[in-house]
Parts: sequence; C-alpha cells; structure tokens
Amino acid sequence: MLEYNQFEETTIHRNEIYKGAIIDVAVDDVRLPDGNIAKRELVFHQGGVGIVAFDEKDRLLLVKQFRKPLEKVILEIPAGKIDPQDKQQPEITAARELEEETGYRAEKMIHLTSMYLSPGFANELLHIYHGMNLTRVEHPLAQDEDEVLELYALTLEEAKQAIADQVICDAKTIYAIQYWELMNRK
Amino acid sequence: MLEYNQFEETTIHRNEIYKGAIIDVAVDDVRLPDGNIAKRELVFHQGGVGIVAFDEKDRLLLVKQFRKPLEKVILEIPAGKIDPQDKQQPEITAARELEEETGYRAEKMIHLTSMYLSPGFANELLHIYHGMNLTRVEHPLAQDEDEVLELYALTLEEAKQAIADQVICDAKTIYAIQYWELMNRK
Repeated sequence: MLEYNQFEETTIHRNEIYKGAIIDVAVDDVRLPDGNIAKRELVFHQGGVGIVAFDEKDRLLLVKQFRKPLEKVILEIPAGKIDPQDKQQPEITAARELEEETGYRAEKMIHLTSMYLSPGFANELLHIYHGMNLTRVEHPLAQDEDEVLELYALTLEEAKQAIADQVICDAKTIYAIQYWELMNRK
Repeated sequence: MLEYNQFEETTIHRNEIYKGAIIDVAVDDVRLPDGNIAKRELVFHQGGVGIVAFDEKDRLLLVKQFRKPLEKVILEIPAGKIDPQDKQQPEITAARELEEETGYRAEKMIHLTSMYLSPGFANELLHIYHGMNLTRVEHPLAQDEDEVLELYALTLEEAKQAIADQVICDAKTIYAIQYWELMNRK
C-alpha cells in the first residue's frame, strides 16, 4: 500500500544541535521527491511506556505530576522512558514503572497499542500496556529521585469529568480512557 | 484538586539551545519541591490541529505522508501547525488544513478534545476537530510547498486493520479511530 520511493526525503546534511539525557536534537537538510530542498527539525527520543491499570474497585490508576513544559500539574496514567536494556521488551519497563509509581504489581502486561506521539518532528514511540490482575506490593520499588508523584484512582465518570476539566489532558491518558469506555461497551 | 505549591518546579536558569521554525529547545535547571536541583530538557511548539472528517461513503479521510523523524510513510488524519494569527481560533487552521490536504470543505468544525502529546518534554498541544457536512471544493487551497501528500479514505474495518499493520501508528489518528468506534456504539 505504501510505496516509499515517491515520498522519501533524503538527508543531504545533518546538523547535530543537542545531545541530552532525554532528547537529542538535529536539523536535516533534505531533498524532497521533486528535487527541492527543505529543512527538517528533528527530536530523537528513546521511546516510552504507559500503563492502563485498575485497582480493586475498578478505578483507573493515575499519577499527579508537575510537568515543566506545561508549567502545570496534570493527571496521567503511569508512564516512563524505556530503559535502554529493556529496548526489546518494553513490558519490563512497564512493570517497573507501574510498581514505582503506584505500588501495584501486575501479574501480566497485555500490549494494547504503540503510537508515535508527534511524528512531524519527533520519533518518540509510546507502547501502551494493560496491567492485569494487580496486587499491592508491601515494599514497592522506590520512585525516581527527581519525580514527585501522588497516586489517584478514578471511576470512568470521574475520569471523563477530569478530561472536561482539562486535569486529564495528555494523549496517552485520553487513549486509556477511550479504551476503557470501549471495553465497557463490548 | 490540584494544589500547585507542593509540586511546582521553579526555574533557576534557562539555557536556550535552539530557535527554529517548528520548535525551540531549552534546558532548565529547576528547583524541586524538596529543594534539590534537576535538569529539564524542554521543547516548545506552537501547537497544532487534527481533523476527523468523513467522505460521502462515511469513510475516514487520511493522508499518506513521509515522516522524516520515523524515516517512513504513514497514514494520518489531516493535521497541521497552528498559524500564529489563528492562535485564539484553531478551528480556522483546522478548516484550512482540511481543505489544503483533502480538497474538502467542512460546514462547521466541532471541537472534540485538546491533548498534550508529550508532556514530559514538550508543550505541544493538539486540538482535534470533527469537520461536519463536507463538500468537495472545485479549486481547493494549494498544499504547502514542502509537503507531499496522497489522500486515502478508509472504512472503520480498514482503519482498524491499518492500525494492526502499523500503517496507522500515531496518537491523533488512533484517537480519531477510537472516537469513531465510540460514536458507532452509542
């Protein structure tokens, strides 16, 4: 269905701008299929995981966190960057992030979807899992040192209200709530 | 519900890394609520729009496009960056992008949701609209010069298959297809 050659943009020159802990940034000069030249600003990211998980009362587990780029506190499903050693098995990162951020351990992780978040400029790919059969861990893994989180558990109605109130306002968490609603209507 | 002060990260110093056409990049030294210092890598983006729109046969309109960060061609709902002069009315950008990318004009644009795509490092906010009552335009607005697009129209079953095949693989388009499925089950 997708023939590459009529569409491909070939890099003529890559200008490396920044190499960081979370992102690398580059600007490419590319040759378009019609022969013209254009610039592409690129952000490289190692990818992440998000976890859809429900407590004993069938409420969605969410974490409240300050997000510096937004300069505000929002509610999101548990999530994290993929650890380089888990690259081939992002469900290992997912299990660890769930435990660190919520204190729950899942019996298994079911892959729901993988989504590029901003394909126009970033290669970040987020893998979303449904953590099944949760149990509370007595001594959970410690949170990352530079993260301040607070755990919430919302019913579907509360979660939909939180979207309306823009307290839930990110793509992976909105995906999770649509998934939940679709599951309930099956 | 969300008290800011216990969570807020205060910028001590901002290091401007890059100012581009699509993104600006900075690295902040921040003071965490516990007094410790951390680094935050930040990407600033003016935000965008995505449009859910259906043709005469109730098929979802999609555009095929090469995405340099992914080095591949994918199918996405029509979308684009917000023009600075439309900042207060992103539905104006949405109407223009729909026409440029598909040759259809919508009678009205219904706001569905607004989502931060990567709140961990980017402030990009995407507004998604449902373009209602489409008509084909005889002489549509021209596409952007550096974009090569091809129009597709898929049924819900075809769109779900395209997700399974990873031809549809970005957050806004997966959102659109979940929205479509939820609408059909109402």
